[in-house]
Amino acid sequence: MSDSDTNRVFLLAERPTGRPDEDTFDLAEREIPEPGPGEALVRTLYLSVDPGMRGRMRAGESYAEPWGVGDPLQARAVGEVVESNGAGFEPGDVVAGRFQWADYTTVRGADLTAVDPDVAPISTYVGVLGAPGLTAYFGVQDVTEPKAGETFVVTGAAGAVGSVAGQIAKLDGARVVGFAGSDEKVEFLEEDLGFDAGINYKTTDDYGAALDEAAPGGVDAYFDNVGGEITDAVFPRLNVDARVGVCGQIALYNATEVPTGPRKLTTLIETRATVEGFLVYDYSQRFEEATRKLGEWVQSGDLQYRETVTEGLENAPDAFLGLFDGENIGKQLVKVGDRRA
Amino acid sequence: MSDSDTNRVFLLAERPTGRPDEDTFDLAEREIPEPGPGEALVRTLYLSVDPGMRGRMRAGESYAEPWGVGDPLQARAVGEVVESNGAGFEPGDVVAGRFQWADYTTVRGADLTAVDPDVAPISTYVGVLGAPGLTAYFGVQDVTEPKAGETFVVTGAAGAVGSVAGQIAKLDGARVVGFAGSDEKVEFLEEDLGFDAGINYKTTDDYGAALDEAAPGGVDAYFDNVGGEITDAVFPRLNVDARVGVCGQIALYNATEVPTGPRKLTTLIETRATVEGFLVYDYSQRFEEATRKLGEWVQSGDLQYRETVTEGLENAPDAFLGLFDGENIGKQLVKVGDRRA
Repeated sequence: MSDSDTNRVFLLAERPTGRPDEDTFDLAEREIPEPGPGEALVRTLYLSVDPGMRGRMRAGESYAEPWGVGDPLQARAVGEVVESNGAGFEPGDVVAGRFQWADYTTVRGADLTAVDPDVAPISTYVGVLGAPGLTAYFGVQDVTEPKAGETFVVTGAAGAVGSVAGQIAKLDGARVVGFAGSDEKVEFLEEDLGFDAGINYKTTDDYGAALDEAAPGGVDAYFDNVGGEITDAVFPRLNVDARVGVCGQIALYNATEVPTGPRKLTTLIETRATVEGFLVYDYSQRFEEATRKLGEWVQSGDLQYRETVTEGLENAPDAFLGLFDGENIGKQLVKVGDRRA
Repeated sequence: MSDSDTNRVFLLAERPTGRPDEDTFDLAEREIPEPGPGEALVRTLYLSVDPGMRGRMRAGESYAEPWGVGDPLQARAVGEVVESNGAGFEPGDVVAGRFQWADYTTVRGADLTAVDPDVAPISTYVGVLGAPGLTAYFGVQDVTEPKAGETFVVTGAAGAVGSVAGQIAKLDGARVVGFAGSDEKVEFLEEDLGFDAGINYKTTDDYGAALDEAAPGGVDAYFDNVGGEITDAVFPRLNVDARVGVCGQIALYNATEVPTGPRKLTTLIETRATVEGFLVYDYSQRFEEATRKLGEWVQSGDLQYRETVTEGLENAPDAFLGLFDGENIGKQLVKVGDRRA
């Protein structure tokens, strides 16, 4: 962890072809920036790495503007205000927002939200109480809408989004089945989070047979963070009027050719199922409501969460790359600094 | 056309592998059946053949029960009541319902609907005022929901469903682009139906380029009757919050292996688009409202329709097989008999 007076900043060194690696990133030394009018200088405490960042490394259009080569990488983060230039915060305030992969960032006060360290640990504001938690909340409550007695399946189930989604579906009374990538994760789902069944997709040959066992009544709601072959096995098992929420497709993000797979639209006619892609930022009008609800569930113990914390900004690329191997349980964070105030 | 006293009935001779052919059908001679209590004996006048029938020739589960080998084929049809055994109709009444591919069928009175020959020609009750028209109506008004100024794309655009769907989208104020399989059909779309553009998919090499020209602002609503490569070209051109209604996938119905193609779910995240399969029978509570509306549009001339009529029950298999070559413009019918009453 740096407490020097220079500012370390990760830049996009080159656009990755296929899987990103260490050559994707360039660590530069910069001066600590001065906050402009209405801005605050924030010191990074926790930085989020998430699979969606892969999309911004591409040149093509997507829902988010691509990062330029040579530009600083960005991330949702929690930090401490060092200096405020009319930003509406005081030095020492803990805030969340979009920072650079850096020790220090200047951010407009309007783009920062206050973090209350008394509600939950500050790291949760980029995890269970941050974008991943909100993504799970809206993806369950507004998109896949599991009802009591229905079967809800989630992929990436031990990850930041999936682990919360499955628990909310349980709170809604659904039978919950999760796909995850290790026996340790499956145990986490079944023992700690109360999932009805976990499937280790790395040791299971036949996803369809595993689903037939874990979800013998078929699938009513499917929350997909992964895509690819697991999704291929889920579609033929969708029930009439099933809802599919497409949140992420990490299995495909590093593909160098257009990925192909079984065509699925005929299944939708037979089932009258609905497939909907969603982005959490479309629900920003309701973030306050959702954050309050998530906070209540965390405080009551209804919502369990876990974090995988990598120490040191310099290790942020490794933390990001590890996502594609599924190394994390729960939210993958990078701890960049400690609170001083 | 038969006016003998025997009843010709087409049976499912064998389940087709791949494309059905003449061996799929067996023409049997049977006695004219007696209507049981509450039933009517109806003489077939017009028989509908439609691509969805391919699904019922398969053994596997689908939304409709598969036909048994050796059993009579069924179809939506219009006929004349010959004899009523407490069915609530009089001999000579024109009725619509699900008949056999036969000269005569017995049908429960509760399963028949009265046809009013004064509103429109009786053949329209299996076409623009029947299941195809209703499918188009709900697929546009409830599923793909084109708004004024939006771009609506439909495949199978010169067919029974697509031709009506495109016209309803025009009534809703959308720019309408249709894919069809001949220059004659494209002319029909552009000249007779008022589509903004038609694309002959059989003579167009690059569907994407054709769409870029015909729908330069991207696609807001997509009504898919066909699937396959045209759909592959539409998906990357979907706009934010686009709606896709999956009505049919005739391009895939005769596949002997699981059809594969580009994976599409990542597109849905970027666009937050919704893909929904639908079946007209799920809207049966609203058939009366929709039929009235369609009838008004037909009478006002807002809704044009065309029919391709094959003469003679014995030619019903050819009429059905021709659907897979796109031989029909508008609704494909088989004329089995004339009204006598």
